[in-house]
Formats: sequence, C-alpha cells, structure tokens
Amino acid sequence: MKITALAGGVGGAKLLIGLQSALPSEDLTAIVNTGDDSVIYGVHVSPDVDIVTYWLAGIADRARGWGIAGDTFDVVESIAALGGDSWFRLGDRDLATCLHRTERLRTGASLSVITDEIRTSLGVRTRVVPMSDEPVHTRIVSEDTVYEFQEWFVRERQQPRVTAVEFEGLDDAKPAPGVLDLISDADVVVLCPSNPVVSIGPILALPEVREKLREHPRVVAVSPIVQGAPVKGPADKLLAASGTEVTASGVAGLYADFCDIFVMDERDAAEAEKVEGMGMSALVVDTLMTDPAASERLAHSVIGVA
Amino acid sequence: MKITALAGGVGGAKLLIGLQSALPSEDLTAIVNTGDDSVIYGVHVSPDVDIVTYWLAGIADRARGWGIAGDTFDVVESIAALGGDSWFRLGDRDLATCLHRTERLRTGASLSVITDEIRTSLGVRTRVVPMSDEPVHTRIVSEDTVYEFQEWFVRERQQPRVTAVEFEGLDDAKPAPGVLDLISDADVVVLCPSNPVVSIGPILALPEVREKLREHPRVVAVSPIVQGAPVKGPADKLLAASGTEVTASGVAGLYADFCDIFVMDERDAAEAEKVEGMGMSALVVDTLMTDPAASERLAHSVIGVA
Repeated sequence: MKITALAGGVGGAKLLIGLQSALPSEDLTAIVNTGDDSVIYGVHVSPDVDIVTYWLAGIADRARGWGIAGDTFDVVESIAALGGDSWFRLGDRDLATCLHRTERLRTGASLSVITDEIRTSLGVRTRVVPMSDEPVHTRIVSEDTVYEFQEWFVRERQQPRVTAVEFEGLDDAKPAPGVLDLISDADVVVLCPSNPVVSIGPILALPEVREKLREHPRVVAVSPIVQGAPVKGPADKLLAASGTEVTASGVAGLYADFCDIFVMDERDAAEAEKVEGMGMSALVVDTLMTDPAASERLAHSVIGVA
Repeated sequence: MKITALAGGVGGAKLLIGLQSALPSEDLTAIVNTGDDSVIYGVHVSPDVDIVTYWLAGIADRARGWGIAGDTFDVVESIAALGGDSWFRLGDRDLATCLHRTERLRTGASLSVITDEIRTSLGVRTRVVPMSDEPVHTRIVSEDTVYEFQEWFVRERQQPRVTAVEFEGLDDAKPAPGVLDLISDADVVVLCPSNPVVSIGPILALPEVREKLREHPRVVAVSPIVQGAPVKGPADKLLAASGTEVTASGVAGLYADFCDIFVMDERDAAEAEKVEGMGMSALVVDTLMTDPAASERLAHSVIGVA
C-alpha cells in the first residue's frame, strides 16, 4: 500500500515515524511544508523539512521537538556574544544542514534534489519531498505588523494577535516535481496532524493540489486538535484568526471538500456525528503520540481504516 | 605617534600585536586586505580581517595561525558528513563571526561598520578597517583555470602554477571611509610583513592609496621575505608569477616609489646596499616574530627608526 503523507513539523513527524515502521521501504513519501522556510544569517533554513528528516532518521531531539539530539550551540552562542540576533536558536549540526543546503542551492541544485540528498546521507529510507522548489513565505499579519512566520513563531513567541495569515509567492510557485503524481498514484493520502493553517495550508494552496485530493478516493486526515486545543503549537491562534472553530470538527470542515476519512481523538467522540454530517467517515481512536509505540498504533489505525 | 598599518593575515597580525603593545590606545589603526574575502555556504568570510582582529583580541590560534584558539569544528564536520564541501575549515566560533557579518550586511550595514562592531565586541582597542566596503576579489590565474584566492590557497593547497594575479572589482571599489585620511594624517605608515602580492597588493591597487603613500614622508615597509623565502605563506610563488625576485630587495623594488624606510632581516644584510640604491633607507634587524616579545621588539625598531 503506497502512502503519500502531507506534513508540517513535529505532529507530522510523529505520525510519519509510525508509518515508516509500519510500511515496507519505498512505500511511504512525505510531502512537507516549506512556508516556514526563512533566510537567517544568509542561510536557508527549512524547519519543517529538517524536523521531518531528523525524526525519520532517528536523530531528532524528541523532548524539545526540533533540532538534533545532543546538538551543541557554540555558533549561536558566539553570535550572541558578538551582539548578534540569536533568537533563532539553531544547533551546530542543524546549522550544518542549512549551510550545506545553502551552498547546494547556490550551485543551482533544487530544494527537492537537495532534500533528497540530505535524507539519503542521513540514512532515511522514506522519501521526503518539499512541497515546492519555489519559495512560498507564510506571513503572519497582526494589527500593526506583518511578520515572517519564524519571527512571529520563535522571536515573538506567538504573542502578537493574529488577524490574518498570508502565503507570499504562491503566484510563482508550483508543486515540486512529482508531488501531484505522488498524490494521484498513492493508494492512500494521509494528512498528518499538523497545523491546518500554516503547515497543511500552504501545501493545499499550491496549484492543483486541492483538485488532486478531491479526485482521490482515499484521503485520510488526522485531527491535530484534541479537546478543543492543539496537541502542540499555536494552531488555536491561527484557526481562530481564520474564523475556524478550534475543534476537531472545525478542522474537519477545512478538509471537507476532499477528505474521505477523518481520524479524531476518542476524547472528541461527541463530535463524530457532526464530522460525518460533512460527508466523510469518522474514525475515533487515541490520537496522542506520546511515544514511538503510540505513533505506530495510530499509523496502524490509519492504514487499517484506509 | 599615530601609526596606520597596512596588513594582510598572520604576518601583519604579528607585527600589529607588537605595535598595539608599544603604542597608547587610539594611536594605531590597521587597514586590512579584503581581496581574499569569499562567500562560502552563503556566508561572507573575511579571512584577513578576522585573523587580524583575533590576534589583536588575544584569542587567535597562534600555532595554527588562523582561527580562534580552542575553537570546535562541529559544523564543518557535520557538513562533511552530509557530503558537502569542507575544504574551508572554519571553526564554529569563527563561523559565528562570519554569520553575524553576513546578517549585518543583509540589513544594510557596511563592512567597515561591522568590522568595527566586531573588534569592539571582542575588546580590541586598535581600530581595524577593511580596505574597502566594496568587494574586490583576488583571482589566481593558472594555466587553464582561474581560481578564487581561497580555492587556490586552501582547496588546491597552492599547487597549481600561478601565471598571473588579478583583482576583480577594482573599477567599482574605493577605499573604505577614512582610509585615505588615515594614511595622510598618520605620523608613520607601516606596511606590515604581509604578502606583497595578495595582501598588500590589493590595498595599493585601490584608487588614490598609492598616491597618498607617495605624498607621505614617513612610510616604513617590513620585508616578508627572509633569505630568499617567505616567512610563511606562498609569497614566493606569487612574486615569481609577477616577475619579481623572491628577495628582500625584490620586495623593496615593489614599494620603491613610496617607501622611505625598508626594514629587512639581518640575514639579508648583504642586500641593504641594493635597497638603499633604490632611494630608501634600509634598517637591518631581526625581523622574525617567533613570539609576542619578538613582535614587540620589531615594533619598537619600526617606531624607533620612524
């Protein structure tokens, strides 16, 4: 069973490691958000792509969620000592990934080729594909400022109130090579429990992606909202800004035009009827991925229902 | 006595620490070559400016000559593990300097402003001024290839035979703010024992620098060549390519139109007459700076003769 999964950061990565364990080599592909990509110190940072790759490689710092386990922070601390910005706290090994990416981009390689090289170097057998080779920038609009996503997320600690979310660059961006076919040709497409607005949102906003999902007979989405709150991250603030109710069924509504099966947490069982009323099946299970075994259990539920 | 010194990398730095010890605060300024500057992994590397700053800050790795003592190499080793280029072996703290510079350049600060910020952060009281805020790129021309200086110097280990040296960007480069006045207003201008072709050469090639030196009554140059060989580095290969004899008097000839006093090593005493025949005074002393005390002794000789 070939699965193509759309993912953002940690929430996506946790389901992906479960799917990677459950499926034979070569049958899983992750299409990952690049809307949070940023240039910091001149270096091309791809936070979601790297988080996913590190988790699949088994080297992620699981407690912290981002970065590489055991990484050192000599560079960022030296930058701080020079009076430079250090709010984007990149570890030394993590920075090496970004510097290598920057150098390869400079020599003309595409982001998707480089991402494939990096995951291969790190021994990851699951294909990791950035959603697009062209830059798409997620902007967080607040009352009086427009932030780059990382500025709002990391530097401002998600404090400025969000009035809108915009994706800059969509007019010139297309899905990375192979992305549309990976959706159409998959037996199952999985939307990971990633942030619906800023992780899954940019992928869905690319030309033809939503159309391909509508045509697909087996699209399974996993709710990132449990008991009216995100498992991790600022999805509540971003959903609220887009006028979406911060509930499992609120998220289901965002996907209703293409989603066939909505996987929601057992703590939200009361919402299952509402979700089914939107024209999709609801699967009610324990969705909390507190450890790799839980990731595997959820992955098996997703595969089973599909 | 106000001294302005023109310098490249290690040879220059060694004399500068001697001058810094010998002079009161604020009386010494170093104008440093930027022809070796390069962009590596998207990061702006200024090897000579950084070497000089680290030596003056007392944090240089004296044994190795470049970089910061006790620096770690986690990033470059991680890049190598990803299959990336790691021939330019930047330490982690050294890289932090370069990343900070890159970020400040991106926000519109000039190289000279940033250089001043960095030396101040590192507690250096000697002013360090890059020769120009505009990019000048030293190119090493070999039989069939044109190398960036760092490619030839580091990656190719100075093996390809040099047929010519070119400075790209000179048409659009001017001396950094203050450089011409720093030369004119100094009581003494010192040319450090740096590589005459690729360290001092680019500074002299900037508009008006050579004219200002010609007008100046007290220009002291220290020979980087002792007994027919450079104390350190590839000056022999580069001098030979430009048709200059690899001797103290060969170097003196390059500076004859503006140099008033030529400081040469006692091992080359036999050449003093030839140097004086070019219209300058010769000072014959021990020029080898094997430790900081030797740097101070040479600095005192330079100050004394001037």
